[in-house]
Amino acid sequence: MNRKLRMGMIGGGKDAFIGAVHRIAANMDGLIELKAGALSVNPEIAVESGRMLFLDEDRTYTDYKTMLEKEAARTEDRLDFITIVTPNFAHFEPAMMALEKGFHVVVEKPITLNLDEAKQLKEQVAKTGQLLLLTHTYTGYPMAKQARQMVKEGALGKIRKVWVEYPQGWLSKLSEREGNAQAAWRTDPKRSGKSGAFGDIGTHAFNLAEYVSGLQVEKLCADLNIMVDGRALDDDGAVLLKFNSGAAGVLMASQVAAGEENALKIRVYGEKGGLEWAQHEPNTLIVRWLDKPTEIYRQGTGFGNLSSYTVHNTRTPGGHPEGYLEAFGNLYRNFALQVSARIDGTTPAAEALDIPGVEEGIRGMAFIDTVVKSSASTEKWTKFEI
Amino acid sequence: MNRKLRMGMIGGGKDAFIGAVHRIAANMDGLIELKAGALSVNPEIAVESGRMLFLDEDRTYTDYKTMLEKEAARTEDRLDFITIVTPNFAHFEPAMMALEKGFHVVVEKPITLNLDEAKQLKEQVAKTGQLLLLTHTYTGYPMAKQARQMVKEGALGKIRKVWVEYPQGWLSKLSEREGNAQAAWRTDPKRSGKSGAFGDIGTHAFNLAEYVSGLQVEKLCADLNIMVDGRALDDDGAVLLKFNSGAAGVLMASQVAAGEENALKIRVYGEKGGLEWAQHEPNTLIVRWLDKPTEIYRQGTGFGNLSSYTVHNTRTPGGHPEGYLEAFGNLYRNFALQVSARIDGTTPAAEALDIPGVEEGIRGMAFIDTVVKSSASTEKWTKFEI
Amino acid sequence: MNRKLRMGMIGGGKDAFIGAVHRIAANMDGLIELKAGALSVNPEIAVESGRMLFLDEDRTYTDYKTMLEKEAARTEDRLDFITIVTPNFAHFEPAMMALEKGFHVVVEKPITLNLDEAKQLKEQVAKTGQLLLLTHTYTGYPMAKQARQMVKEGALGKIRKVWVEYPQGWLSKLSEREGNAQAAWRTDPKRSGKSGAFGDIGTHAFNLAEYVSGLQVEKLCADLNIMVDGRALDDDGAVLLKFNSGAAGVLMASQVAAGEENALKIRVYGEKGGLEWAQHEPNTLIVRWLDKPTEIYRQGTGFGNLSSYTVHNTRTPGGHPEGYLEAFGNLYRNFALQVSARIDGTTPAAEALDIPGVEEGIRGMAFIDTVVKSSASTEKWTKFEI
Amino acid sequence: MNRKLRMGMIGGGKDAFIGAVHRIAANMDGLIELKAGALSVNPEIAVESGRMLFLDEDRTYTDYKTMLEKEAARTEDRLDFITIVTPNFAHFEPAMMALEKGFHVVVEKPITLNLDEAKQLKEQVAKTGQLLLLTHTYTGYPMAKQARQMVKEGALGKIRKVWVEYPQGWLSKLSEREGNAQAAWRTDPKRSGKSGAFGDIGTHAFNLAEYVSGLQVEKLCADLNIMVDGRALDDDGAVLLKFNSGAAGVLMASQVAAGEENALKIRVYGEKGGLEWAQHEPNTLIVRWLDKPTEIYRQGTGFGNLSSYTVHNTRTPGGHPEGYLEAFGNLYRNFALQVSARIDGTTPAAEALDIPGVEEGIRGMAFIDTVVKSSASTEKWTKFEI
Repeated sequence: MNRKLRMGMIGGGKDAFIGAVHRIAANMDGLIELKAGALSVNPEIAVESGRMLFLDEDRTYTDYKTMLEKEAARTEDRLDFITIVTPNFAHFEPAMMALEKGFHVVVEKPITLNLDEAKQLKEQVAKTGQLLLLTHTYTGYPMAKQARQMVKEGALGKIRKVWVEYPQGWLSKLSEREGNAQAAWRTDPKRSGKSGAFGDIGTHAFNLAEYVSGLQVEKLCADLNIMVDGRALDDDGAVLLKFNSGAAGVLMASQVAAGEENALKIRVYGEKGGLEWAQHEPNTLIVRWLDKPTEIYRQGTGFGNLSSYTVHNTRTPGGHPEGYLEAFGNLYRNFALQVSARIDGTTPAAEALDIPGVEEGIRGMAFIDTVVKSSASTEKWTKFEI
Repeated sequence: MNRKLRMGMIGGGKDAFIGAVHRIAANMDGLIELKAGALSVNPEIAVESGRMLFLDEDRTYTDYKTMLEKEAARTEDRLDFITIVTPNFAHFEPAMMALEKGFHVVVEKPITLNLDEAKQLKEQVAKTGQLLLLTHTYTGYPMAKQARQMVKEGALGKIRKVWVEYPQGWLSKLSEREGNAQAAWRTDPKRSGKSGAFGDIGTHAFNLAEYVSGLQVEKLCADLNIMVDGRALDDDGAVLLKFNSGAAGVLMASQVAAGEENALKIRVYGEKGGLEWAQHEPNTLIVRWLDKPTEIYRQGTGFGNLSSYTVHNTRTPGGHPEGYLEAFGNLYRNFALQVSARIDGTTPAAEALDIPGVEEGIRGMAFIDTVVKSSASTEKWTKFEI
Repeated sequence: MNRKLRMGMIGGGKDAFIGAVHRIAANMDGLIELKAGALSVNPEIAVESGRMLFLDEDRTYTDYKTMLEKEAARTEDRLDFITIVTPNFAHFEPAMMALEKGFHVVVEKPITLNLDEAKQLKEQVAKTGQLLLLTHTYTGYPMAKQARQMVKEGALGKIRKVWVEYPQGWLSKLSEREGNAQAAWRTDPKRSGKSGAFGDIGTHAFNLAEYVSGLQVEKLCADLNIMVDGRALDDDGAVLLKFNSGAAGVLMASQVAAGEENALKIRVYGEKGGLEWAQHEPNTLIVRWLDKPTEIYRQGTGFGNLSSYTVHNTRTPGGHPEGYLEAFGNLYRNFALQVSARIDGTTPAAEALDIPGVEEGIRGMAFIDTVVKSSASTEKWTKFEI
Repeated sequence: MNRKLRMGMIGGGKDAFIGAVHRIAANMDGLIELKAGALSVNPEIAVESGRMLFLDEDRTYTDYKTMLEKEAARTEDRLDFITIVTPNFAHFEPAMMALEKGFHVVVEKPITLNLDEAKQLKEQVAKTGQLLLLTHTYTGYPMAKQARQMVKEGALGKIRKVWVEYPQGWLSKLSEREGNAQAAWRTDPKRSGKSGAFGDIGTHAFNLAEYVSGLQVEKLCADLNIMVDGRALDDDGAVLLKFNSGAAGVLMASQVAAGEENALKIRVYGEKGGLEWAQHEPNTLIVRWLDKPTEIYRQGTGFGNLSSYTVHNTRTPGGHPEGYLEAFGNLYRNFALQVSARIDGTTPAAEALDIPGVEEGIRGMAFIDTVVKSSASTEKWTKFEI
């Protein structure tokens, strides 16, 4: 590849947290440049945001359809891919259209508003042959990848237990009625879908659990709660899990765990040992053993048989902490490596292929469906079906 | 009180871990002296253990019945109370007899082999008017008491969530077949009762959850597992909890969490903040708030509005860590204060009354019954009944 | 500003760790684009590196003088600033020339090879009126800034103690003789200057200590050591410090602290409380108080009176950890804001001015001189002189 | 041994912190009973304290001389040893007399008021052949012993660095003028000796450094400070150390580190790795390696080649934390094992011999002398002389 890849963005105008994160992640490694945007449904914000991001005026759009039409028609400096960072309900249509117009796609999670849309999107991906990245950030962390690889290689023996938890506290009050825009759409079924906390963060925990363990949930038993009076969607819950291997698990997620920030943590135990990784301290992987002292694996060091996946996704030497933005950057970098390889007609490294896509999106939507169904059921176990 | 209290012990011969712990706990504060023992069903061990503990030869017994008979008949230097540290199946009969003979009783948890025995014991306590201490050690920690008092005083507002977890790894192999005596009886239904991990450590987690939250479980949904092939009782499990206040909870316990030591931890979240206490680092209570920085409360310091219950159960100034043996010692010290007050005809301080007894024992046995029943059921929720 | 700033780079070819870090830091916020480079003294590496970074061929140079000449002569798309990431001995000449040619300058620390060069550079900066950023990364961390602001505002009362430590272990062996290129130049007086560990990391610790405390070292007592036989420069040492306010301090740095990564940590104690910040866990600031519980301040949260300097340098909400690259990015972003303001004729925000420059560079060089002099002296105290 | 050892106590009446600690430590393992006491120079407190401790009235004394006379004259139930827990200035005379009367002695540190007294006491010990325990508590911790043994066995290779620190904050104000009795005597040269913080806690840090490293300080460079106006003795300081092996060290101690509790910590680095042990979390030893992941050694587990010294001094299995009182109890238990062996005519185990005595006392007093001398000197290095 002899140039940066060209990105267009839908959503993510100024003041939108996740749009800024996507741009930092895309910028970080010097492989991608933002060239066009339909950054807001509010035309003034769209234009102002384009200016702040140094976009050409003629590539700053006020609606995504126009952008996709016009950009698809360019013969020069054509966009390589489209990033979609709108609220959940507005993922599906732009993604379908972008694929159809011949662009690769990056889409925020959850992939769509519901499972049916996700299935259609999967077909579209298959039909168009384009690439799709679903930004489940947390699996972009090098030590989450280390955990996965150690499980995969059998370092822990057969896996027995998976505990994953995701406490946040930011919805402890009825903030959606107090002018918090993010709280407003996250708790609104029309914009977020049929689940609140479990759509937003439960899916992350679920994705991480399946990613690290290499297992798939087969059935589950969910208890979703609305802890704040007046709220329309679940803000809390817990799920008992059974995996296809016979392993058991627990998934806990809450947005009313007052005082917690974003404390995603996973523990996996096998016959020989256990792993613990916490997003708040992401450069560290705690490895416990049945018959020797606990070890502290640290990214960027040469120790602990760090996997090629870990090393590939690390930018700094040990003791120079990387964080959330680098994990996000890893998704973009690997996606860029895939897109570049496609353009160059080469084969990307296995490490670059290890990013979430439409399959993870479908499993995430099915997870939401299943926990909502289970929570309403008097049966203990509900089958996980797609 | 102008003398030390006199203790007799049933079980706890040399090499028995928990017997030694009880003796250290009883010795620590100089309020109690061991005067008699039926320390083993093996006569040689009983005699040898008595000698190692400097017991008089004529107060070293080889069966508990003889001990209770003879000691009850003494007119001088009479025992004040009996400590029972035998395996679960051998709690009930000595406890019933000791009470009948006019001794107060200390008994290891779980209180009996089953709920029915526990109910009979409760009646015996009521009938005899004797005192009974059930050694749920973990509620003896000063910072567990601080947590309880803060919840009670409303510092966190209404409680919404209780997460309690208790991972251990020591039963990750089939140790009961490899000559591990403790593993052998802990996994044997005849000696341990109808549950393994949940009888042993699940009851501790349950007790701590109700103690700290001040709430009672109303219904639950349990998934117990046998993770090690060939084992007769559960070695792992998780339970969804619903409390009488509407709060929700999760209780996780495992003895196959390979590499974990004894990692009991509780988190409680209310409308205004959350508490976290971990037994591995027991001198610290993490207090999170909805609207101000997280605080670190430390026992022995003068800060953080430490409750009178916390202070009463603390021996050292801040930074001089106390541990498991001191928590255990607190149970004995408070029990001794109650017994002394009874002898002196005075009223013990409220702080000395805050120790587990027969009520906690009954709830623990009902918890075991309910999780076993729920785990076998296809219904999601099983009512917690006594 | 209606465009990105244009950067040229001297040094930092492929495989050079610090060059890559500078580029990520410069890319991150979308304010800067790399346009030209003299990336290596090895022409092949220079060309290959330029290609990998998508530089135009005609802006890929094989020596820095040609680059500065030609780029200075451009009338269009002219560079705004030059980043110098060569080894210490090769900072001075390119920096002097770049300033003379009318470019702003970013230079790695230590600023020059010796104090005399640093003084000349200061004059050149004054004469040309150009901006200079010295990349003392660690003061770019939001919570290091929070610490400084709290001290400045008197939250801790008068400062009494400063403890700063910087253990690394990577020079525990004679790696400079085993093909480690970085070890080779770091331990070579011709390329590194008169100190090894204290030039490399001692200066960081010193800079952080003066930055956070707001104080200046007045005299010191140093003990530098060469712990690995055959090494030419100090790889370890400790310094007693006296500050201009009467406060006392200790600075410890070592590159033979086997097993340590990059564990820079500072503690500052005043009359009312103390602060602790560790680079390994940079999103957290521990705040201890004389008369209330320890508090945990976390960047990205709304709590703890986070200063405007902290907030300005934070990209993510609480619980989405930032790290070393973001701290580095903060230096670049603030430098870019200053350069842009210069171009736009506006005044940068106070927060953007809070980055290290030539003054910090001179104090760093004087620190090296003073510790080397003190270490060789039999006098206890050596005056800190510039 | 077929009975408990009999202890008499001088000092340590009710409300005296350290007296209570000694009693708990002595009680804990059931090897010792308190039989007599001269618990206070205030007769009322002496009598009241004796009653609270259930002492016989005729063995409750109001002055130590009478106690030593009368107890020495007993033919039955004679005391085995005397514990001295008075302020520093009142250690020497009772210790001399107790030894002369044929009692073994336990004495709080620092051993005496000055080095000369310490030397006399050493002669007395030699002359009488009695045993003397100096309660440097911190070397009683199992993981401090593990650290020592690992260094001794060469696990870290040759030792290069020792960093020991001991921050406390309790003297941040002029508490000695505000009715704090402990502050009053600790800061009074007549009762404490020629150093304040360094006599109180500096000696602990020094003792721990020599104990763990197995090295001896040869020369040092000290900077002692009085940070609180109006105070008579040092409340803060730092010392550069040179050991007999060529290793270098830093010792930092402060009682004005506001907000700190009792944060003694030691780090030792050798050619192959480093150790870190912190008294606030004493069950853990962090072991870093040059070429493999950091390990977490935990007392009570079977892992990490825990030494026989570690195991011998551990009472509970892994995850059942022990603390300060158990460390103190280890000193008493080992002392009791030595005394019992003396009585029985047997040889105590090597592990029981590993407790501090008069040699450590003399080195501690010499340390105080040397730091005070060095702090007043303009010479950089002061020789450590006894």
